[in-house]
Amino acid sequence: MLSSAEGFEYTPTEGLKAGLPTPAVIDPHELNASTTETYDAIVIGAGYAGLITARDLTSQGRKVLLIEGRDRIGGRTWTSYTDGHAYEMGGTWIHWHQPHLWTEVTRYGLNNQIKDSLEIYPESAPQSTYTGGSRKDWSPAEITAMQEKSAATFFAIDGKHPTEWLPYPHNPSYNRADYVKYDRMSVQDRLDQLDGVLSEEEMAFTKANLGALAGIDFAQISLFDMVQRWLLCGTTQEEYMNHMVRYKLKCGQTGLASCIFDDARSTGKLSYSFSSSLQAINSSDPRRATVTCADGRTFSARQVVCTIPLTVLRSVRFFPELPPLKAEAIAKAKSNLIRKLHVQVEGKQWKSWAGAKFAEEELLMVMGESHSPSGKDTNLVAFHDGANIGDPRIKAKELVKYFEGLHPDMKVKRFVFADYIDSPFSKGGWCVFQPDYMSKYLGALQEPVGNVKFASGDYSDGWRGFIDGAIEGGIIAARAVEQDLRSPPRHPKLTRI
Amino acid sequence: MLSSAEGFEYTPTEGLKAGLPTPAVIDPHELNASTTETYDAIVIGAGYAGLITARDLTSQGRKVLLIEGRDRIGGRTWTSYTDGHAYEMGGTWIHWHQPHLWTEVTRYGLNNQIKDSLEIYPESAPQSTYTGGSRKDWSPAEITAMQEKSAATFFAIDGKHPTEWLPYPHNPSYNRADYVKYDRMSVQDRLDQLDGVLSEEEMAFTKANLGALAGIDFAQISLFDMVQRWLLCGTTQEEYMNHMVRYKLKCGQTGLASCIFDDARSTGKLSYSFSSSLQAINSSDPRRATVTCADGRTFSARQVVCTIPLTVLRSVRFFPELPPLKAEAIAKAKSNLIRKLHVQVEGKQWKSWAGAKFAEEELLMVMGESHSPSGKDTNLVAFHDGANIGDPRIKAKELVKYFEGLHPDMKVKRFVFADYIDSPFSKGGWCVFQPDYMSKYLGALQEPVGNVKFASGDYSDGWRGFIDGAIEGGIIAARAVEQDLRSPPRHPKLTRI
Repeated sequence: MLSSAEGFEYTPTEGLKAGLPTPAVIDPHELNASTTETYDAIVIGAGYAGLITARDLTSQGRKVLLIEGRDRIGGRTWTSYTDGHAYEMGGTWIHWHQPHLWTEVTRYGLNNQIKDSLEIYPESAPQSTYTGGSRKDWSPAEITAMQEKSAATFFAIDGKHPTEWLPYPHNPSYNRADYVKYDRMSVQDRLDQLDGVLSEEEMAFTKANLGALAGIDFAQISLFDMVQRWLLCGTTQEEYMNHMVRYKLKCGQTGLASCIFDDARSTGKLSYSFSSSLQAINSSDPRRATVTCADGRTFSARQVVCTIPLTVLRSVRFFPELPPLKAEAIAKAKSNLIRKLHVQVEGKQWKSWAGAKFAEEELLMVMGESHSPSGKDTNLVAFHDGANIGDPRIKAKELVKYFEGLHPDMKVKRFVFADYIDSPFSKGGWCVFQPDYMSKYLGALQEPVGNVKFASGDYSDGWRGFIDGAIEGGIIAARAVEQDLRSPPRHPKLTRI
Repeated sequence: MLSSAEGFEYTPTEGLKAGLPTPAVIDPHELNASTTETYDAIVIGAGYAGLITARDLTSQGRKVLLIEGRDRIGGRTWTSYTDGHAYEMGGTWIHWHQPHLWTEVTRYGLNNQIKDSLEIYPESAPQSTYTGGSRKDWSPAEITAMQEKSAATFFAIDGKHPTEWLPYPHNPSYNRADYVKYDRMSVQDRLDQLDGVLSEEEMAFTKANLGALAGIDFAQISLFDMVQRWLLCGTTQEEYMNHMVRYKLKCGQTGLASCIFDDARSTGKLSYSFSSSLQAINSSDPRRATVTCADGRTFSARQVVCTIPLTVLRSVRFFPELPPLKAEAIAKAKSNLIRKLHVQVEGKQWKSWAGAKFAEEELLMVMGESHSPSGKDTNLVAFHDGANIGDPRIKAKELVKYFEGLHPDMKVKRFVFADYIDSPFSKGGWCVFQPDYMSKYLGALQEPVGNVKFASGDYSDGWRGFIDGAIEGGIIAARAVEQDLRSPPRHPKLTRI
């Protein structure tokens, strides 16, 4: 198995190692990428949005060049095989209520390849919360009741169940007035309303729960964005967890991504180039767009699909300039600074343990996810944010102490993680919108600009920030490209010829 | 708009008229159907399974002949425009938890085209049940409580929530032991266990509720089959209704089916022939199968996809004979005899009314669905079974009396319906399995036989009996065909050449 330059492993004995083995690295690294050919389409980005677009177009007989800045497929979703364990380095969990993703699961015969991250290990330590500096252990019934009450209270905004005003969770703009109203509110605004309503414990859990999805800066998170995800996830905390962190692919996310990539490659219509950073897209000639990479090569195609993350778009030069609303949306895009960390700890008793902690500059949601391949240890998955926890590349030793401080029996053996925040190919984790952004810009972000189409899980209609949203975007972009290739839209420059 | 020979309209003044206008009838009726060409694939059946297969294959550049016995697309799902109203003549409701269907909704940009059949009309008559010959009107809170209790009790089989033993509702065989165990049980077996546990009212509602899905003959309905649908629908009666009878497409089901058909046709790779009944499939030559129609024409192709309903398969001759298990499954297939009837009644007060009745030879679930185009009347949708209600083609007058007997204020203006039970193209409604059938035969029914693939919502893994299941089957069949076309499987006859 080849290794990606991305990803890190840290052990107290051996320190930090960069680069992880993953089947997401494709051999050969480049195939038939030609600067003289005019492709039917250039797809920029080999995450799920780009892979689906490339697969749909090549299977329709279109010649596609896939350009990817990273050295692998999958974008913010990839599986590393380290120490015999399949670590999901980014996007991980799936659910059959994610329609676009599940259709791919069906297509590649994977519907009997699901495993359960929340399977109960009866000898587990009780779940813990950390409020006011001290740990509290809970019985399953107690913590469930506290969590359900907290979440139900948080989302009963203006005394209504949110299905009352957003009945179609895949159609955020259905009820325009409430869309704008609740998009202008921040999570902090809602938390302020609940001051004195939720107990200190409930408030800390609520913040940890929301923060694990969207980061610690609650004034910069749209309330609507959180509500839509809550609706997609079934509107109870139990179902929220089932949708968010429960079901994984036995073959790993890279297993599914490879099915799609291999499918595209098997058509014979796919050219590709990895480790090729995008610099500029020129669509001033409506019949032939060009894409220039950082290494100076320029490729051309009749159509371009740009799937690079929202927070990276500002580093791309577009000729002609993008329409004002889209440009404004890109300029204002904010990064989600939450970090995901795999923590291998000694002992089996952490499998069904979980911890939730929220304090100033300190946000942690951590849960046991599986036993280690040896059967003796537990792999935890942690989501964290805040200066008191920080970047594991720099503060690994402090983080060992931090995790070991969560419980006297906890002993850290290993960290495995990727960096998305500094990465020039993501500049942050999955996308979460700030207030007053989505209702203004979502449509503009999705809008094609002539022969350049845009697709990303960062700005899909439904499961934004999820693999499903990326696939949704890819399906729509591929169809738009195919329609334009079959009958090019009328265009002033074309009709003047 | 052209008319199909199918479908009926009855009014007390004008009596019964056969044939209904529908955009599902395609003009021209046949296109480039050639008996001399060898197609890449022949797809038999233009319901959703066949349409998806044909669309996927033609968009991949394959030459496809689509053969349909009916005079229209859609199979058991089609929309008739009668008296200004879009009547869904068969499959109607959709949900974003139906992944394969929702992916098509996304592809064709229809996710903002959903309407709500259960929208509350505040001036509605109270909902009614009919037990022991008398009507009882309920407050919304009372009937909800009774229904939730009844359903929860019915599905708490062996004291367990069914997610405990079937955690993956798209993978029925995940837990083989319980699959077989509960598949051997009939709905009647479970009802017998609840004798004395449910009240007479609760029992009547439970029977009406299950019977509306599967017909009146409870000893001939697999308990497992019902449980799987319950799991797919979210395991509360409220969510069951939301998944089953709530959300419709504004463009009608034929609107979506037309998107798929038009997409296939626009490739230039689609030939088709409507009103062509299938007689025989001969796959004895692995390189070239032939399909013979009732009019004597024989077509040939490298691959065949057979999507005709399970209960019709026994009327098709296969050469060579099908494998024993598949043949046995086909021979034993039973028809669902439930009927769907649109009932237009005078007045607006029936919009949020519903009635549930179960007595000997008498099963009725009826609900207000929309106001009529005039705004003055209500369109009800009824599902019924049993000799005391019967075939509206024959017993329309009695049925008028029957419905008017449900409530003193009810006055029937019109029936609109299709017959699927006598139709040679369906021989019954959507598929429901008898006990000890699915766990034995589901795999065999799905299994390809050489270059003949089988796809139908009647025997899909997930949403069996739903549009989603048909699309699931179509996706899998198209992929299997494409793989065989790219690299034909080794075969004794081939290697001998």
